Amino acid sequence: MMNYLRNKFKVIIVTGVPGVGKTTVLSLIQEKAKKLNLKIKVINFGTFMLETAVKEKLVNNRDEMRHLSLRKQLELQQLAAKRIIEESLNELKEEEFLLIDTHAIVKTSSGYLPGLPRHVLDELKPDMIAVIEADANEIYNRQTKDASRNRSDFGTAKDIEKLMEYARSASFASAVHYASTVAIVVNKENKADEAAEQLIQYIQKL
Amino acid sequence: MMNYLRNKFKVIIVTGVPGVGKTTVLSLIQEKAKKLNLKIKVINFGTFMLETAVKEKLVNNRDEMRHLSLRKQLELQQLAAKRIIEESLNELKEEEFLLIDTHAIVKTSSGYLPGLPRHVLDELKPDMIAVIEADANEIYNRQTKDASRNRSDFGTAKDIEKLMEYARSASFASAVHYASTVAIVVNKENKADEAAEQLIQYIQKL
Amino acid sequence: MMNYLRNKFKVIIVTGVPGVGKTTVLSLIQEKAKKLNLKIKVINFGTFMLETAVKEKLVNNRDEMRHLSLRKQLELQQLAAKRIIEESLNELKEEEFLLIDTHAIVKTSSGYLPGLPRHVLDELKPDMIAVIEADANEIYNRQTKDASRNRSDFGTAKDIEKLMEYARSASFASAVHYASTVAIVVNKENKADEAAEQLIQYIQKL
Repeated sequence: MMNYLRNKFKVIIVTGVPGVGKTTVLSLIQEKAKKLNLKIKVINFGTFMLETAVKEKLVNNRDEMRHLSLRKQLELQQLAAKRIIEESLNELKEEEFLLIDTHAIVKTSSGYLPGLPRHVLDELKPDMIAVIEADANEIYNRQTKDASRNRSDFGTAKDIEKLMEYARSASFASAVHYASTVAIVVNKENKADEAAEQLIQYIQKL
Repeated sequence: MMNYLRNKFKVIIVTGVPGVGKTTVLSLIQEKAKKLNLKIKVINFGTFMLETAVKEKLVNNRDEMRHLSLRKQLELQQLAAKRIIEESLNELKEEEFLLIDTHAIVKTSSGYLPGLPRHVLDELKPDMIAVIEADANEIYNRQTKDASRNRSDFGTAKDIEKLMEYARSASFASAVHYASTVAIVVNKENKADEAAEQLIQYIQKL
Repeated sequence: MMNYLRNKFKVIIVTGVPGVGKTTVLSLIQEKAKKLNLKIKVINFGTFMLETAVKEKLVNNRDEMRHLSLRKQLELQQLAAKRIIEESLNELKEEEFLLIDTHAIVKTSSGYLPGLPRHVLDELKPDMIAVIEADANEIYNRQTKDASRNRSDFGTAKDIEKLMEYARSASFASAVHYASTVAIVVNKENKADEAAEQLIQYIQKL
């Protein structure tokens, strides 16, 4: 099926606030998929967007990217979404899966920005929006340890709690546009395997 | 008025999680409407969708329906929404009311599915989305007693609480598409009559 | 840039439940903008809508306006949104700011009505939706003192709390349509200046 509501292959958007353990869960999912003989392709939206910007000669590097105006970033975001689908069309068959690693909400210096706005959804047409959550205190502790990734600016555990609440609210709002399911998966401390297992079960039932 | 924002007659979508007492409230509303000389027509979306699927020879019975892929179900959902409006056009005049009994959110094996996604809203163009709520513990008790309707799979009272929270969030998200009002009505134990009374007052003020 | 996602100038929608102190914050923002040499124009949506209705000979005064049907009000709302942008096109340059004072959610006799539905967003294309919040008890106290503005009908502090919760949910839902940021600003008792300062910083970073 390739209609106005869906892409040919299945599109799963995997979201989660920084520090929730999304990267770990995603790599476990890739291992599991291999064992299950499920064809899945994982794309990091931010990385893909940067590559697209460089390819289109809009920026030379990640630093220039950060200094683009918000409006320019939105244009670029849509272009990246379009390219992600186009590039996957040759690679993925029906019943195969494209997983896109991104955010449902992003804290910016102008407020909370929806990571899955309509102009992006119009390209991605997601079957599922997965929301990986974790205990706010656990996330806070991981962030403070994780200085290398500059995550110290996410505030207190209460700020993280709020961000997760807004991310969930934004996920449901985004889900209405293409009748995407919202799969909420809790990533408990040292139980990333369970989270990956639950998510892959949700995906297989699509 | 028959424009891009509204249908000719008034469309009220009545939602509520399983066990909230929606059926009772709706039949009380029908009684009250008769007394008030208000013309209302009530349609159960799920039943209508099954009938549409049988008529269109997509399935032979309810069981086959459950085994349709999610994507096929979404196509069918839109077709049903379109037919509901078409069939009501001859029957209902302006200032008359179509009440559609459905869900704002549905728990599926791939996560929470919005019951009022854009492609359904584009057909129904609701004036109002009513959200019937109740105390989660009361719902839990009703569900466990109500074995005949296979409702034992809705989890704990806390799961029901969450489902109601997501349903409300999804309702507001759906309401933004057609400027529908969101009418939240509490159905207290043994007070279904009050809930019906409140809802019919909201409807009359449309 | 004047494209399908944005207007030429920057559009900031400033929302807040009645009694939250929005008017005070907005006038402080205008003072600050003057000092910063920032060109901003503030429009009250409700007032503009009334003037539009009178100009288009749909009503003679505010009282007739209240008695328009909800459907007529929605048509008028869209017309007002369109006129607000049209009238600002001559006045505001790129990098200048249009602030629109309105509500994210409105309590009506048919339930909660989204103040920023799709047909309004399609005109305003907001860069930002600011949500001014305050402690529900403080709002309640202000409302009860403020008899002159007929605000006694907003119920208890708990009702106000709920209204703010729904307004936030509706803001995120509206924000998804045009990738607007959601800037949540707390207006603490006697600290309106801090709220104005924070909001103007968010605006400048757009």
